[in-house]
Amino acid sequence: MNHHYKELEFPAIPAGRPYVGVNMVMSVDGKITVGGKLTPGSLGSDFDRFTMTVIRSHFDAIICGAETIRQHPYYLGVTKDFEALRTARGQSAQPLTIIVTTSGDLPLDAPLFAQSPQRPLILTSTESYQALRRKLGKRAEVIAVGQDKVEIQPALAVLRRELGIERLLLEGGPSLNYQFLHAKAVDEIFLTLAPRLVGSDADLTMVMGPDVLDSLPRLELISHFQYENELFLRYRVPVEYQS
Amino acid sequence: MNHHYKELEFPAIPAGRPYVGVNMVMSVDGKITVGGKLTPGSLGSDFDRFTMTVIRSHFDAIICGAETIRQHPYYLGVTKDFEALRTARGQSAQPLTIIVTTSGDLPLDAPLFAQSPQRPLILTSTESYQALRRKLGKRAEVIAVGQDKVEIQPALAVLRRELGIERLLLEGGPSLNYQFLHAKAVDEIFLTLAPRLVGSDADLTMVMGPDVLDSLPRLELISHFQYENELFLRYRVPVEYQS
Repeated sequence: MNHHYKELEFPAIPAGRPYVGVNMVMSVDGKITVGGKLTPGSLGSDFDRFTMTVIRSHFDAIICGAETIRQHPYYLGVTKDFEALRTARGQSAQPLTIIVTTSGDLPLDAPLFAQSPQRPLILTSTESYQALRRKLGKRAEVIAVGQDKVEIQPALAVLRRELGIERLLLEGGPSLNYQFLHAKAVDEIFLTLAPRLVGSDADLTMVMGPDVLDSLPRLELISHFQYENELFLRYRVPVEYQS
Repeated sequence: MNHHYKELEFPAIPAGRPYVGVNMVMSVDGKITVGGKLTPGSLGSDFDRFTMTVIRSHFDAIICGAETIRQHPYYLGVTKDFEALRTARGQSAQPLTIIVTTSGDLPLDAPLFAQSPQRPLILTSTESYQALRRKLGKRAEVIAVGQDKVEIQPALAVLRRELGIERLLLEGGPSLNYQFLHAKAVDEIFLTLAPRLVGSDADLTMVMGPDVLDSLPRLELISHFQYENELFLRYRVPVEYQS
């Protein structure tokens, strides 16, 4: 297996929380969905999906929002051939899948739960905790951080302290990406620029919140490489946009 | 003056219309505005603005929608030092500024009209023609193509046939970009990927229409180069997405 991202260097783990990366694929006109859907392969190529697995292989856990799972209800894992590589590095064979939800509206009979190599973790609010334990407790771990919504920085502190997660990969959607950035909890961004034009005003972009991000972060381009017509970009979020 | 785009090769001019390029600057999260505004420099660097002029220098005319002009009411020209270069190539010293509008809601006392090196061209519908002639006729040429809205392909045929425009550069906004793409009238795209995150769900993307583009064009990445943390990309729209 040869890939530009097979060996990656990462900065030191921040104090009190995991190091957080984001990975997304976006069209040339800035969309991450096509006709409202996040279907894998609608924007990215086979090589992009392979790249997604290579990136995941460096992380202890993969986190996403419930809508992302509803659209594609699979475990956020790596393919078999990465398991030995991970084990050799001292990581668990598979990263932990973490889903942020207060509604608990997840497809219980989906592959995510039926065929997961490991019980997923549901991250919810204390208000939703009992209901989600009853609904999902047989198929997933459930933990609560925050009163009526998941508080990002306290949740990250728990993931680091209680679960020992040192590197966390965020895979969307746009609202969860915004919450992480708003909480200054993103250290780097992997972005695939897919050579497509979507065009519709209703499709989603990578970060969507109620306001322009306070600091309008200026990113540092760490590396970029081209494969056929796709570009694979890696940006660092400078420390002044973190806490 | 040294720039990657100083000398550019272009394919042959298509039959019956100008060759059309698009040039836009976009954030890493796919936005072209910040807080709803298109202010130059809010996303791109000084080098990006210089690059915009270098790209313009290759085109006979620059076209945009009225909202783009309302937000930044300047002639879509090149800086003085490009005039000799253009003249030596057999082009007019300045490209022609073309504005697509049916409302005619344009700032008449703005630099676009007050200090333009050449009368701008207003491209409108036949229904709006008389009103726009009365309002803008002293400061601009006005032509009409299409009954109640500007029809892109017939308008391009007129620009080529009547005005001799062989290369046309489209600079937005999102709605006009969509209309051109929907009409299969875009040959290539220049894109600056600015290392910024905007984050708000209300900000605009590069192409915004009522639907996903029929063909979901697959672009060809012609070239890319990095300057500091910005990426400058050039994509070709394959001929099957053109007419």
